[in-house]
Amino acid sequence: MRYAVLGTGIVGRTLAAKLSGLGHETVVGTRDPEVTLARTEPDGYGNPPFAHWQAGHPAVRLTPFAEASGRADTVINTTAGAASLEVLSAAGADNLAGKVLVDIANPLDFSAGMPPSLDPVNTDSLGERIQRAFPRARVVKTLNTMNCAVMVDPSRVAGEHEVFVSGDDADAKKQVEEMLLSFGWPPASIVDLGDITTARGTEMLLPLWLRLWGALGHGDFNFHIAGARPGA
Amino acid sequence: MRYAVLGTGIVGRTLAAKLSGLGHETVVGTRDPEVTLARTEPDGYGNPPFAHWQAGHPAVRLTPFAEASGRADTVINTTAGAASLEVLSAAGADNLAGKVLVDIANPLDFSAGMPPSLDPVNTDSLGERIQRAFPRARVVKTLNTMNCAVMVDPSRVAGEHEVFVSGDDADAKKQVEEMLLSFGWPPASIVDLGDITTARGTEMLLPLWLRLWGALGHGDFNFHIAGARPGA
Repeated sequence: MRYAVLGTGIVGRTLAAKLSGLGHETVVGTRDPEVTLARTEPDGYGNPPFAHWQAGHPAVRLTPFAEASGRADTVINTTAGAASLEVLSAAGADNLAGKVLVDIANPLDFSAGMPPSLDPVNTDSLGERIQRAFPRARVVKTLNTMNCAVMVDPSRVAGEHEVFVSGDDADAKKQVEEMLLSFGWPPASIVDLGDITTARGTEMLLPLWLRLWGALGHGDFNFHIAGARPGA
Repeated sequence: MRYAVLGTGIVGRTLAAKLSGLGHETVVGTRDPEVTLARTEPDGYGNPPFAHWQAGHPAVRLTPFAEASGRADTVINTTAGAASLEVLSAAGADNLAGKVLVDIANPLDFSAGMPPSLDPVNTDSLGERIQRAFPRARVVKTLNTMNCAVMVDPSRVAGEHEVFVSGDDADAKKQVEEMLLSFGWPPASIVDLGDITTARGTEMLLPLWLRLWGALGHGDFNFHIAGARPGA
C-alpha cells in the first residue's frame, strides 16, 4: 500500500514510522516541506523538530499535502481537528476521490483554554464534516480515542481494550481493519460502530480521555467495553 | 441513612429497591402520588405501572418531591435530564440544602428524534447546572454511564469495569463512595475524576453508550479503563 500521512506532529510521525516499518511506501504531507524541515525548535508538546525525526526514518519522504495525497492509495488525517478541513482542501478533493481517508483527528477547541471543548460536537462530528466536504473520499474514523503510542502498539495496554471504527463504506472499513490487524489489534478488539455519524460518540470520548490522562499522569490506557458475565 | 429517590421510572425503582433492601429508609418522590399510583398502563419503555412495582416493595413509600426530599439526608435524582431542574425546584432548595444530591440523570434531548443528542453538552453539563441552581446542595454525579441493573449489581458485567464520581465536595463524594461500595463496587473500581465539571466527560459518554447498546442488543456492559501493561 501507498500511504500518505497528513500532519507532521507526533501522531503523524508515529503512524508513518509504523507503516513504513511494515514495508508500505509512506510519505508525510505538510504545507511546505522546506518550512517544516527548517524548524529547529521542539514543537508545542516538546517533541523534537521534524528534521530530527526524519533523519531516523530516511525511507519516509516529506512532500506537500497535494503531492502526498495524489500518489497515495490511502490518506491518513493526523492534523489538528481545527485545521483538518483546510489541510484536506490543500490536499485536493481530486487527490482524495475514491480513496480511503482515515480520520484520526479530534475537533479539540482550545480557544477558551484548558480543558479544550469540542467543535463540532453532539449533533455533528469532524468525521461527518470531512465526509460531507469530500463526498468522493471514503472516510473511516478510527484510532482517535487513544494515545498514538497505543494506536500502533496495542500491547502497551494490559488486557482487553478496543479500537472503534465508523464509516459509510463497508469496503473502506474492511481495508482499515486490515491495517489495524497489522498494527497488532486482535480481531475481537475492532468494534465497527456503524456509519460515520457514530464518530460523534468516539469524538465525545475525548473530554473523559483528557480527564483520565490528567488523573493517571500518562497516556498508556484505553477504553474497554466490559461485557455481560456469562449466565448473567 | 434516609434516602429520597426522585423519579418513578426504572432507574428510580431499581435504586429504591436496592437501598431499601440494604435496610435504608427509602422514599420515592413523584409530582403527585395519586396520579402516579392511578396509572394502569406500562410506561414508554414497557415497564409495568408504578403501583405494580410498589406492591412488591411495600417498605418504599411514595410521596411528593418536597416531602421526600425534606425527610431524607441523601437525595438521588433519577429523573429524565430534561425535567431534572424543574423536579429539583419542586423538591425545594431548602429541602436540598446541606444534603448530598446524587445526580444519575443524563441530559438526553430527544427533540430531534433518535439518537438523542445532549443538552447541555461540551462547555457545560447537567451536573454543573444542578450544582449552580442549588448551590447549597452537595452534588455528586455518578452511575450515569451504565444501565441501572449494572448500577446496583456490578457483578452482572464480567471482569474489571468502573464507576465514575464527579463533585466539588470531598465529604459528599466519600459518602457516595460508601453507597457504591454497599452496592458491590470494588474500591479500585470507583474513579474520582475531580470536580463537578468532570461530569461533562461522563455525560458525553452517552452517545457511545447508546450506539453500543444498539450494536450489542443489551445493556449489560460497562466501560473499563484498561491500564498500562506492567513494564510498558
